[in-house]
Amino acid sequence: MSQAVLKTPQIAAYDPLAVAADLARRLGASANQRDQAGGHAAQEREWIRASGLLTLSIPTVFGGHGADWPTVCQVIRIMARADSALAHLLGFHHLQLAGIQLYGTPQQQKRFYTLTVEQNLFWGNALNPLDKRSIASDADYGYQIDGVKSFSSGSVGSDWLTISAWHEATQSALIGVVPTRQSGVTVQADWDAFGQKQTDSGNVHFNRVSLPATQVLQAPGAAPTAQATLRSQVAQLIMTNLYLGIGEGAFEAARGYLADEARPWFASGAASAGADPLVQHRLGQLWLKLRPAAVLAEQAAQTLERLYRLGAAVTAQQRGALAVTVAEAKVLAHRAGVEVSSEIFELTGARSTSAKYGFDRFWRNARVHTLHDPVDYKIRDLGRYAFDGTLPEPTAYS
Amino acid sequence: MSQAVLKTPQIAAYDPLAVAADLARRLGASANQRDQAGGHAAQEREWIRASGLLTLSIPTVFGGHGADWPTVCQVIRIMARADSALAHLLGFHHLQLAGIQLYGTPQQQKRFYTLTVEQNLFWGNALNPLDKRSIASDADYGYQIDGVKSFSSGSVGSDWLTISAWHEATQSALIGVVPTRQSGVTVQADWDAFGQKQTDSGNVHFNRVSLPATQVLQAPGAAPTAQATLRSQVAQLIMTNLYLGIGEGAFEAARGYLADEARPWFASGAASAGADPLVQHRLGQLWLKLRPAAVLAEQAAQTLERLYRLGAAVTAQQRGALAVTVAEAKVLAHRAGVEVSSEIFELTGARSTSAKYGFDRFWRNARVHTLHDPVDYKIRDLGRYAFDGTLPEPTAYS
Amino acid sequence: MSQAVLKTPQIAAYDPLAVAADLARRLGASANQRDQAGGHAAQEREWIRASGLLTLSIPTVFGGHGADWPTVCQVIRIMARADSALAHLLGFHHLQLAGIQLYGTPQQQKRFYTLTVEQNLFWGNALNPLDKRSIASDADYGYQIDGVKSFSSGSVGSDWLTISAWHEATQSALIGVVPTRQSGVTVQADWDAFGQKQTDSGNVHFNRVSLPATQVLQAPGAAPTAQATLRSQVAQLIMTNLYLGIGEGAFEAARGYLADEARPWFASGAASAGADPLVQHRLGQLWLKLRPAAVLAEQAAQTLERLYRLGAAVTAQQRGALAVTVAEAKVLAHRAGVEVSSEIFELTGARSTSAKYGFDRFWRNARVHTLHDPVDYKIRDLGRYAFDGTLPEPTAYS
Amino acid sequence: MSQAVLKTPQIAAYDPLAVAADLARRLGASANQRDQAGGHAAQEREWIRASGLLTLSIPTVFGGHGADWPTVCQVIRIMARADSALAHLLGFHHLQLAGIQLYGTPQQQKRFYTLTVEQNLFWGNALNPLDKRSIASDADYGYQIDGVKSFSSGSVGSDWLTISAWHEATQSALIGVVPTRQSGVTVQADWDAFGQKQTDSGNVHFNRVSLPATQVLQAPGAAPTAQATLRSQVAQLIMTNLYLGIGEGAFEAARGYLADEARPWFASGAASAGADPLVQHRLGQLWLKLRPAAVLAEQAAQTLERLYRLGAAVTAQQRGALAVTVAEAKVLAHRAGVEVSSEIFELTGARSTSAKYGFDRFWRNARVHTLHDPVDYKIRDLGRYAFDGTLPEPTAYS
Repeated sequence: MSQAVLKTPQIAAYDPLAVAADLARRLGASANQRDQAGGHAAQEREWIRASGLLTLSIPTVFGGHGADWPTVCQVIRIMARADSALAHLLGFHHLQLAGIQLYGTPQQQKRFYTLTVEQNLFWGNALNPLDKRSIASDADYGYQIDGVKSFSSGSVGSDWLTISAWHEATQSALIGVVPTRQSGVTVQADWDAFGQKQTDSGNVHFNRVSLPATQVLQAPGAAPTAQATLRSQVAQLIMTNLYLGIGEGAFEAARGYLADEARPWFASGAASAGADPLVQHRLGQLWLKLRPAAVLAEQAAQTLERLYRLGAAVTAQQRGALAVTVAEAKVLAHRAGVEVSSEIFELTGARSTSAKYGFDRFWRNARVHTLHDPVDYKIRDLGRYAFDGTLPEPTAYS
Repeated sequence: MSQAVLKTPQIAAYDPLAVAADLARRLGASANQRDQAGGHAAQEREWIRASGLLTLSIPTVFGGHGADWPTVCQVIRIMARADSALAHLLGFHHLQLAGIQLYGTPQQQKRFYTLTVEQNLFWGNALNPLDKRSIASDADYGYQIDGVKSFSSGSVGSDWLTISAWHEATQSALIGVVPTRQSGVTVQADWDAFGQKQTDSGNVHFNRVSLPATQVLQAPGAAPTAQATLRSQVAQLIMTNLYLGIGEGAFEAARGYLADEARPWFASGAASAGADPLVQHRLGQLWLKLRPAAVLAEQAAQTLERLYRLGAAVTAQQRGALAVTVAEAKVLAHRAGVEVSSEIFELTGARSTSAKYGFDRFWRNARVHTLHDPVDYKIRDLGRYAFDGTLPEPTAYS
Repeated sequence: MSQAVLKTPQIAAYDPLAVAADLARRLGASANQRDQAGGHAAQEREWIRASGLLTLSIPTVFGGHGADWPTVCQVIRIMARADSALAHLLGFHHLQLAGIQLYGTPQQQKRFYTLTVEQNLFWGNALNPLDKRSIASDADYGYQIDGVKSFSSGSVGSDWLTISAWHEATQSALIGVVPTRQSGVTVQADWDAFGQKQTDSGNVHFNRVSLPATQVLQAPGAAPTAQATLRSQVAQLIMTNLYLGIGEGAFEAARGYLADEARPWFASGAASAGADPLVQHRLGQLWLKLRPAAVLAEQAAQTLERLYRLGAAVTAQQRGALAVTVAEAKVLAHRAGVEVSSEIFELTGARSTSAKYGFDRFWRNARVHTLHDPVDYKIRDLGRYAFDGTLPEPTAYS
Repeated sequence: MSQAVLKTPQIAAYDPLAVAADLARRLGASANQRDQAGGHAAQEREWIRASGLLTLSIPTVFGGHGADWPTVCQVIRIMARADSALAHLLGFHHLQLAGIQLYGTPQQQKRFYTLTVEQNLFWGNALNPLDKRSIASDADYGYQIDGVKSFSSGSVGSDWLTISAWHEATQSALIGVVPTRQSGVTVQADWDAFGQKQTDSGNVHFNRVSLPATQVLQAPGAAPTAQATLRSQVAQLIMTNLYLGIGEGAFEAARGYLADEARPWFASGAASAGADPLVQHRLGQLWLKLRPAAVLAEQAAQTLERLYRLGAAVTAQQRGALAVTVAEAKVLAHRAGVEVSSEIFELTGARSTSAKYGFDRFWRNARVHTLHDPVDYKIRDLGRYAFDGTLPEPTAYS
C-alpha cells in the first residue's frame, strides 16, 4: 500500500487541476510506448495513487478532497488528453466511490471512504449488468458469490471491487463490495482490444466468495431509488469526459505537429502549413466539434453535482432531466472523440503516421471506448424526449 | 407616438420573457399570412411598442427595464420562434441602443435613452459598412450628410436611425444618430429577399441632412476603442439568437405536426409516426443541432454581459475572447437554423408542404438571414484562433 | 388539340436533347416569375406539346420517337434544371405511357400509343395508392368509378388519365385509363404546396364514370407481374432525374452568379469570388454531391432500359436488383437536390436572395418533390439489401 | 527468380478476377496476424508472383495477360479487401509497368516487358518527387546517380525499380529504371507507419549507381507529354481502388460479424442485430458511401483505358478531363475508406474490438494510405473545374 497520500500535507492548498496536469505530462511522455506494449501499467498506477487523486471525490469529513463533480470530470479530461486508459482507471475508481454514496448506508460510506483514504485504495469494477454468470446464494452471514464477471475494467491491480451478482430467488441483482485479494476472488486479465489497452479490464472469477451483509450496497429484490440510479449517469458522464479528453488530445497533437513539423502543401502557395486557408478552415471545423461537447459536458457536470448533493431527495423527474443532459453531452463527445481523432490526419499528412508519434492511438482509444453502449440509442432517447418529453428509462446505460 | 408604455404601470413586476411569449403567440397567429404578403407590419410593430420591450435594455436609471444581455437575447429568441422578421426589428432596435452605450458620451446616453423611454421610440439601422455611398462633409454645426445607405434594416417605420457616413478628409467613417423624419432623410423600402420579408429594410437617402456634433457618436478619424468594437459582437449575438429561434420554431412546428397530423409510414409497422424508431432517431439528430447552439449562445450572452458592464475598462484581449465565443455560437446557430428548417420535412412529409402551414418560411428566413457575413470566414477565424490563439480582427462582422 | 407535332417533319433528325435544351431555355426565362405566380402553365404546356417530346418514349412502330430510358431521363433532367414543375409534367406523362406498356395488352398499347401520337395527347396521373376513396363497381361494360383521388399530378389540363380504384369484392385495386373530359370526371386544382407549384396536381372526382373493359390495364384481383411492378421503378427514376436536375440547376445558378455578380469577401484577399480558396473548396464539395448522383442515375436508367425491353420475361430478382440500383441513385439525388439548393447561398451571399433571381425556388422545388416517399425507408431498404441480399418489396414506392 | 508463371499453362483460360479472389482468400487468412507483426511479407509476395498477376497489364504481344485497366483495378480492389498492403505492392508494380508504356520507347517497352514476363519480375517505386536528394550527374554512358530517395514503396524485396533523380544542369528530374540488386543500390526498410505496414516502403540509397542511357525513360530537360502525365492518373486510380477495397473489406467484416456474432441491443426489441431498424438504416448509410465511389472508380478506369490506348495521340484536354474523373472517384473512395472503416464499429460494438478480429486494421490502412496527397486540394481542384472548367494542373499528384 502506498503511503503517497501522506506526502500531500497541506490539503487546503491541494490543486487537483494542477496535480492532474502534472500527472498528464508525466503519463504523456510514455503514453505512445505503453500503448504499443499494452498490459498493466503498475508504475503509472502508483503515480496516480501518489498524486492524491484517489481521494479526490471523497468528502472532506472522511479525509478526502471533497471535490465536486465538475472538478472530478475536469481532472479526468485533463488526464485523458495524455493517456485515456489511465484516466479511465481513475474515473472508474471514482465511479465506485460514487456507488457507495448513492447505494450505501451512512455506515458503509464512513467505513469505505475512511478505509480508502487511510490506505489510499484503488477501486475496480465488476458490475457488467449484461453478464449474468455470477450468482449470489443466500448465506447466514449474507451471500455467497460464485461465477464470473466479464468486462471488469480496472479490476487488475485493484484493491477493492464493486461487484454485482444475480440472485435467483428474487430474479434480481445485488450490488456489493469485496477486497480484490479476498479468498476466492481471482482476476484474470483478458482485455485484448485494439484501444484503451491499459484499462486493466479482466474477467473476475468468484469461487465461494463470502459477501457479508455489511458489504451489500443494494440487496436483491430492492427497487433502486432515483438516487441509486444516478450511478449510471455518473458513469456516462465520466465516459463523456474521457471521449472529450481523447478528442482534445488528438487536436493538440495535430496542432503541435502543424506548428512544428508540417510543411505547407506545394499547391497552397502558403508560407507555412498554418497559414493555408484550407488548413485553417478544417481546424475550425474540428474545433467546432470539440467546443460544444466541452461546454455541454461542463453543464452536465454541474447538474449532476446539484442532484448528487440532494441525496435521497432527488426525484425521478430530476434524474431523467439529468439523463437527457448527459446524453446530449455524451453523443457530442462521442462524435468529437471519434471524428477529430480520425480527421486530424487530413491536416498533418503522411509523415505524421510514423509509429514514433503514435497519433493513431487517439482514434483507437476513442473508437474502443465509445462502444460501451450504442450511440444510436442515445440519439433515439433524445428524439423521444424531444418529441413528447419521455425521459430515458433508468438502466445501467441511460 | 404611441403612449403604450404608459400601459405597463408596474415596472417592478415586468416579466420580459412572459411578455415575449405572449407577443410571440400573437405574432405567430398571423406569421404565415404576413410572410406570404410581405411588406411593412405596421400593426405588429405597434404591438411590440405596446409590449414595453423597446425599453428592455435601457438602464433603469433612465426609466428602462435594465435587462441584461442574456435576457434580451432570450426575448429575441422567443420571438424569433414565431416571427423572425419582427424579432429582428426588436433585436436591431436594441443593437442601436447598445451603440449609444458603447460609442456615446454620458450626455448622449442620457439624452437618447430618456427620449426613447419617454416617447417609446423604435430605432432603425443605416450603418452598412460595405456601402460607402453616404458622405459626411464638415459643417460648422457638425456634419452634413449626403448620399445613400443600403441594407438598412428596420429603417422603414423607425423613429430614429443610427447612421454611418464616409468622411473623405480622414478617410474614415463617422457614426451618428438622426430622427428618421428629419428633413432630407428619405427611406425607400426596397427589400425583396425571399425571407425575413418584414424586416423593413430599405435604402436610406440623405439630402443635405444636418448632423449636429451632439448627435455624433463616433467622430471621423477616431480609432474605435475595444469597448466600441463590442458593438459588432452585440450584432453577431443578436443574429445568433435569431437563427436559433428560427431553428427552434421549425423544430416545434414539426414536432406538433408529427404529434397531431402525421400518419406513420406504411412500411414502418409503427402505431404512430412518433413511435417509429427512424423518426425518433432523426428527431434526436435535429435536437442535437439545436441544443449545443442554444447552450453556447447562452454562455456567450453571459460573457457579453460581463464585458459590456466593464465599460471603457474592457481590453482588446477580452473583446477578442468574446468574439471567439460568439463566433462558435453563431456558426452552430447558423447551421442549426438552416439545416433543421430544411430537414424537418423528412419527418413531416408531403402533406406538410401545404401553403396553409407555411413551414417553408423557417428555411427561407434562416437562409436569408444567415448570409449577413460568410460562415466559412467565421470557421476560418476559429481555426486560426485554435491554431495559435490569433483573435478575430475587430471588424463590423467579427 | 395542338397540331404542333406536324411541325417536326424530319423524325429521323429529331434530337431530343437539343429539343429539351431549347425548351429549357425558353422555360427558364419565365420560371422565376411563374413560380411566384403559381397556377396552371397552359402556354408552356403547349410548348412541350409542340416540341414533340410527348411522343418521345412511344415506340417508332406507333409513330413515336422510340427513345430509350436513358434518353427520356436525360430530357427530364435537362428540363428540370430550368423548370422542375413542367419537367415533372413531362416525366409523369411518360410514366403513364410506360404503364400502358407494362400493364396493358398489345391491343391497348396499339390503341393508346397511336391515339397519343395522332392527337399529341398529354397524360396525367390519378393513381395515388394511399388514397382509397375512389371505388370501382362491377358493370356489364366493365366498371363504374365513383369517388375521389387526391395528389393527382398533371391531371389539370391533361387529355387522358391513368386511374386506380378500389374494388371491394376482390379487396384490390384496378388500374385503367379514361379521357379527362369524359362525363363524370372533374378535376379540381387543389395543389397549394410551397414548391413544384405548376405541377397541375389536383383532386380528381369520379361521378358514375364508365370504365369499359377495354380501358382496364390491370383487372381487380390480378396479382401484378414482375413486369408490371417495374412501373414504380420508372416513377422513382423519373423523380431521381427531377431531383438531380433541380440540384444541377441550382449549382449552375450559383456558378453564374459567382462569375458575374459576386464580389470577393473583403477578408479573403482574393481578386475575385471565384479565386477564393474557400469558395473553390465549397464548390468542390457541392460538385461531389451532384456528380455521383448523376452517374448512378445514368447507370440505373441503362438497367431499367434493359429490363423494360425484356417484357414479360423480366424476373422478380432482376426487378429487385433494379430497385436497389434506383434506390441508390434516388437517395443520392434527393440529398443532392435538397442540400445543394440550400448550400449554394453560402457562396452567393445576401444579395443573391433578391426576388429578382428567385434562387430559393430550387430548394422549394426539391424540398417538396423529395417528400414523395420517406428517404429514411429507402436507406433502410438499402441496408437490408446490403446485409443479406433482401430485395425491396415491390410497392408503389419501392 | 520464381518460375511460377510457368505454372499457369492455359493463358487463354486465365481469369484474373478468380485468381485475385483466391489470392485474397489466402492473404485474408493471415492479414490480421501479419498486420500486427508488420515487416516484409516474403512468402506472400511469392504467392502474388506465383499467381501470374505480375504480368496482368503487360500486352499479350510481350507474353503478358494484356488486361485492361478496369480489370487491373478490379484485381487490386479485390485484393485490397483482404490485404491492402499487398494489394498496394501489386498495384504499384503495375504503375511502374505503366510508366514504361507512357514514358518509354518501343525498344524499352519490348525489353522491360519481355524481361518482366520471362523472369516474373516484381517492380518497386523510387520516384517520390518531393524528395530531391537523389542527384543525376552526366556520364558518358548516361548518368550516375547518387543520394537517397524516401517513401519508396515496394522497394524492399523488389527486382527492378523506377527511380527519379534531380539533374542540376537542366533543373529538372530524370526518370529511369535500375535493377534493385545493381551495385551501389541499397534499400533500407524504414517504414514505421501505423497502417499499410507491409508495403515494403524504404529509403533507397544510390552510391555511384550507373544509369545507362538505354534505361532512361525520361531524359532531364524534356517536358513531359500529355501521354507521360497519364502516369500520375494511373497512380491516383490505383490508390482509389485501394481505398475502396479497404472500405469494402471493412463493410464485409462488419456485415459478417453482425450476421454471425452480434447480439441485438436490449433496448431495440429486435430479434436479431440485423433486424434492428437503426442497424439497417446505418448499414444503408455506409453502403451509400461505398457504392458511388465504386461506380465512379469503374467509370474512371474505363476512361483511363481509352486514353491509355490512344498513346501519343492523347491531348492535354483529354488528360485533364480524366484527371477530373479520377479526382471525383478518389475523393469519394478516400471518404468511403476512412469513414466506413471507422463507423462500422457503431454497428458491431465493444466485443468486435478484440485483437482476434483486428478490425481496426481497415481504418489504420485507409487512414495512412489516404494521406498520399491532401484531399482538400483534390476538392479544391474539382471546385475550380466546376467553376470555369479549369483542368487540374498535371503534377505527380493531379
